[in-house]
Amino acid sequence: MIDLRSDTLTRPTEEMRRAMAGAEVGDDVWGEDPTVRALEEETAALLGREAALYVPSGHMANQLGLYVSTRSGEEVWAHEHHHLIGDEQGAAVVLSRVLPRLYSGDPFPPQELLEKWITGLGDVHRADPALLWLENTFTGRVVPLEEQRRVTNFAHEHGLLAHLDGARLWNAAIELGVDPARVAEGFDTVSVCFSKGLGAPVGSALVGDVDTIRRARRGRKLLGAGMRQAGIIAAGALHALRHHRERLAEDHARAAVLAERLSGLPGLEAVARTNMVLLTTAEGEAARYAEAFAEEGVRALGGGDRIRMVLSLEVTDSDVEKAAEAITRAVSRL
Amino acid sequence: MIDLRSDTLTRPTEEMRRAMAGAEVGDDVWGEDPTVRALEEETAALLGREAALYVPSGHMANQLGLYVSTRSGEEVWAHEHHHLIGDEQGAAVVLSRVLPRLYSGDPFPPQELLEKWITGLGDVHRADPALLWLENTFTGRVVPLEEQRRVTNFAHEHGLLAHLDGARLWNAAIELGVDPARVAEGFDTVSVCFSKGLGAPVGSALVGDVDTIRRARRGRKLLGAGMRQAGIIAAGALHALRHHRERLAEDHARAAVLAERLSGLPGLEAVARTNMVLLTTAEGEAARYAEAFAEEGVRALGGGDRIRMVLSLEVTDSDVEKAAEAITRAVSRL
Amino acid sequence: MIDLRSDTLTRPTEEMRRAMAGAEVGDDVWGEDPTVRALEEETAALLGREAALYVPSGHMANQLGLYVSTRSGEEVWAHEHHHLIGDEQGAAVVLSRVLPRLYSGDPFPPQELLEKWITGLGDVHRADPALLWLENTFTGRVVPLEEQRRVTNFAHEHGLLAHLDGARLWNAAIELGVDPARVAEGFDTVSVCFSKGLGAPVGSALVGDVDTIRRARRGRKLLGAGMRQAGIIAAGALHALRHHRERLAEDHARAAVLAERLSGLPGLEAVARTNMVLLTTAEGEAARYAEAFAEEGVRALGGGDRIRMVLSLEVTDSDVEKAAEAITRAVSRL
Amino acid sequence: MIDLRSDTLTRPTEEMRRAMAGAEVGDDVWGEDPTVRALEEETAALLGREAALYVPSGHMANQLGLYVSTRSGEEVWAHEHHHLIGDEQGAAVVLSRVLPRLYSGDPFPPQELLEKWITGLGDVHRADPALLWLENTFTGRVVPLEEQRRVTNFAHEHGLLAHLDGARLWNAAIELGVDPARVAEGFDTVSVCFSKGLGAPVGSALVGDVDTIRRARRGRKLLGAGMRQAGIIAAGALHALRHHRERLAEDHARAAVLAERLSGLPGLEAVARTNMVLLTTAEGEAARYAEAFAEEGVRALGGGDRIRMVLSLEVTDSDVEKAAEAITRAVSRL
Repeated sequence: MIDLRSDTLTRPTEEMRRAMAGAEVGDDVWGEDPTVRALEEETAALLGREAALYVPSGHMANQLGLYVSTRSGEEVWAHEHHHLIGDEQGAAVVLSRVLPRLYSGDPFPPQELLEKWITGLGDVHRADPALLWLENTFTGRVVPLEEQRRVTNFAHEHGLLAHLDGARLWNAAIELGVDPARVAEGFDTVSVCFSKGLGAPVGSALVGDVDTIRRARRGRKLLGAGMRQAGIIAAGALHALRHHRERLAEDHARAAVLAERLSGLPGLEAVARTNMVLLTTAEGEAARYAEAFAEEGVRALGGGDRIRMVLSLEVTDSDVEKAAEAITRAVSRL
Repeated sequence: MIDLRSDTLTRPTEEMRRAMAGAEVGDDVWGEDPTVRALEEETAALLGREAALYVPSGHMANQLGLYVSTRSGEEVWAHEHHHLIGDEQGAAVVLSRVLPRLYSGDPFPPQELLEKWITGLGDVHRADPALLWLENTFTGRVVPLEEQRRVTNFAHEHGLLAHLDGARLWNAAIELGVDPARVAEGFDTVSVCFSKGLGAPVGSALVGDVDTIRRARRGRKLLGAGMRQAGIIAAGALHALRHHRERLAEDHARAAVLAERLSGLPGLEAVARTNMVLLTTAEGEAARYAEAFAEEGVRALGGGDRIRMVLSLEVTDSDVEKAAEAITRAVSRL
Repeated sequence: MIDLRSDTLTRPTEEMRRAMAGAEVGDDVWGEDPTVRALEEETAALLGREAALYVPSGHMANQLGLYVSTRSGEEVWAHEHHHLIGDEQGAAVVLSRVLPRLYSGDPFPPQELLEKWITGLGDVHRADPALLWLENTFTGRVVPLEEQRRVTNFAHEHGLLAHLDGARLWNAAIELGVDPARVAEGFDTVSVCFSKGLGAPVGSALVGDVDTIRRARRGRKLLGAGMRQAGIIAAGALHALRHHRERLAEDHARAAVLAERLSGLPGLEAVARTNMVLLTTAEGEAARYAEAFAEEGVRALGGGDRIRMVLSLEVTDSDVEKAAEAITRAVSRL
Repeated sequence: MIDLRSDTLTRPTEEMRRAMAGAEVGDDVWGEDPTVRALEEETAALLGREAALYVPSGHMANQLGLYVSTRSGEEVWAHEHHHLIGDEQGAAVVLSRVLPRLYSGDPFPPQELLEKWITGLGDVHRADPALLWLENTFTGRVVPLEEQRRVTNFAHEHGLLAHLDGARLWNAAIELGVDPARVAEGFDTVSVCFSKGLGAPVGSALVGDVDTIRRARRGRKLLGAGMRQAGIIAAGALHALRHHRERLAEDHARAAVLAERLSGLPGLEAVARTNMVLLTTAEGEAARYAEAFAEEGVRALGGGDRIRMVLSLEVTDSDVEKAAEAITRAVSRL
């Protein structure tokens, strides 16, 4: 079975397991774990920020970014398909009590919409906006840096903060051929993930300035995510950060190959976006397709008119070849 | 100046003032105010429900409807332009910590959307839906009772509760020529307002079954809206309920006359909906039009491409005539 | 029946009813009610503050004081018997999500306790303190102004804000023979009540500086307590503020007379505190005593070892005489 | 340096590191990690419950116990020194919005207090009680099982649920010579910790019935603590659960030896409680003593009049001997 459901499924490599087994550790709740500290420092440096905080998931890195940048009753502006909105349960309203104001379509808000939303502030009927949210990559798609700049500039000019959900920021940087710090520019807080494409077993980080990360550290403890000898898993994340970023280019290349191999199959449109291949079917047909793929040995996520396949560490060139053949067989039988 | 900004502006009539001045009162926090009790009983009866709760505003009646029907982290399904979403600040997320899931367009959700939203429940990434929200009238427009029935049936079949924001339910009932109880059918909770078209100075009510209203009464106290000798203002609401419902037909008739008089003005489209006249301008022009109206003696709310004018108790046939003339003058000068 | 359960039971006088019936009103949600404005201005001036906000209850005035002075997860320091803690349901944790840290005994915290509580700040296990709470009068007892000063100074020196629950501040001022503004000194926010000893049917106010009250006004709207023609009840409160403050001295005098008349009754200790008479019984006997009083025509609140009787506007010298006789009869029969 | 500050400081043993390095893993967010499943199943079985949930900390296990057993605005009854109240920041009010009602003194509430607190329910001024909280061991002290039974029975008779903070339940079971399941009896939810005395690097569990744990699993995801290949650290916890429970008796024995060795030192009272040695100094002297200990090579936590020293996996008989000598030297110099 070739499992293309997500890059979160990646299991640690042998080198990574050795790094974890030998990690030097301490009690991180008391700030005494040297491996966690090293991970946080290298992550902050790589993203051009003062400080970083290691947390159990990208979901928590996002929610802490929200928590430190808003007050109860304020607005966060986001895309209706951002992970924050549709994939983090009701966390934004439970933990931070913020009201989402959502756009759809492009993976960044158009200027006219921002201008419209910023009018009428202070009206007692309306929540105050506090935070503008972006995600890069967004469903595999790279958000252009000039759009990020336009949007974060607008936010700051009007007193909003800006957060980047960079769960797959590493992919964006590789695709654009720029340093990760370039993708993080202009945002007050940025979340990044070690357990998606990078392949670590557990963890994400939130980066920002010293004071913001100090408050996020308190927030992490409030949520109950202060971990004791967290250096064990931080060692896996650190190994991934040092050794698995460059190789993301291979995932992107394999995604392109797979999309190419699937183009022209009847009833499907295939497109490669960074490390993802997205297939569009007729409305309501995607789940049926995904089941057929599974019967031929390829697991993928399908719903509505969309099937998602994600390339990652454990998927080889040969797997791509086999997957293309299996899907072709599956489609021919539908 | 003829003020058409809102039906909330209506001041109490002389009869209403007399009713308030002579009201029998007690301490309503302790359930000892006979006038509040009478108001709650008559309101519940009129809407075909077991119990009612008198509160300071329609906003609070709505928020208590939300509070008693949801748990933290659940979803409420509503229209993006419902009062709950855009006009009650961040109250829904602060008080009830619910996540809004919004549709746009028609004032009720299409069946396909409901079917789509109900799929995939229980996924750990997703909030559980708890409450379906409607508003009738909605921007003056009557939501057909068969649409209400379809939607509330769907909600109940799938374990959601249903709430009606009936701030202007009295207008819907008059327009449809049915009892108010008919408009309230199928909903677990319904809010109604005494201070909009009915003309009372203060207050709304939430209706429902005995247990729900008992919990809402606790919620009202939690919010700090237990009032002592509330019978003073409840007397105004009771007078309005008894004497001002039928006369809403006059407001609807005057809205029709005014829209008719304004049809054909250059740059404007005018439509009457129950007690409102809605004017559509070119995008971004509405505020400028509203200013011009004010210079001629007519106050209206304008923003984007929309001007709203609301007919109510204090606006006479003669005012309508004068308003039409003033607006015609204003438009001719623009 | 002579009802001494609470000074909240007081019904409006004829003069007050006339003031309400004739009140000039507007839509207060839009800031257009002249009577509400006048009430807010006079209240602020009387307490030596920049601004005031009229709200439906003392509970809400307190909760808004809490809301504007804290962030989620912070501590409020209060007495275990403050109204905020034991009489406002779970509002403090629902609306403001603050953690109470409580002392018992004296109606103000001893210096050693403050010193102890302020140590160890910043520890990731502990909530940050944000607000220090006092209540004056507290169960009828006047908190000395020098204790208030010590405590509010301590708060400000350590970065906490200070709030005074002044539901019966008017009584404290009369008892101390000082201006109300003196009792309010040193606090960032103060709540006062119009519907207890002052006898208005509905309402309290929160006072503070302009920015704080602006935020409280938004908070009031968020709670759903923006009222339309609130001038009707504000007129009652304004009448009470102007005409019923000085007469509180009569209530205090009557409380002293009543306590004197009840001293020496077997099984009871009686003490007068401002407008209250507090009777202490054997533990668990108070409810039984209160029932016996009621059978003789006097209503009082009794629980545990404590019976509370409150003097107010409607209780005359003759009522005090009759109450003393009735209670004496009741005790003789127990 | 002999570090006795906490049993959370324990670093993984070599066997534990090997178990982690070789752990079979999958994506636990999708329920596909076999090691996490095994840990959850063994933990549940050991505690006589249907289900368990692995979480990053005892703090989170407690907070999820609170979250699944309460609704916003309800009361939790606890001891003023329970970890939930003083050591988990403001999490209880931020995440669950519950109002703590606290007792002091004995590590369980006296019957008279429970009887008093249960009276007057339903009063609109009061929060409803929802959950009774115990902690065993509590500052090293074993709560007698008959007291647990009395208290949980009371809770259930009056409609409250009961939670046990069993961070050191393993120590209580060893000290009492009973199965862990006996200590967990009578509670609806129980938290246990793998990273204190058991010595695992990361993690705790919440146990309960299937439906409760299903809701806690959703809650864990809401908090952002769904971890991907969590089997790495779960393997450490599983190793600890299988191999480190019985050896807690050694820690208790060493605590007794150390307390014995320190008895009679001037200015100190020493007592052993399970795996802790508690020293009482004059008020305000504890921090000074702890500093003196550190200068002689022993780290301990000291504040107010109390020094805490905790025995655990890495502390040998020889360390105990050295610590006793070092502390004796330190005291002689003070």
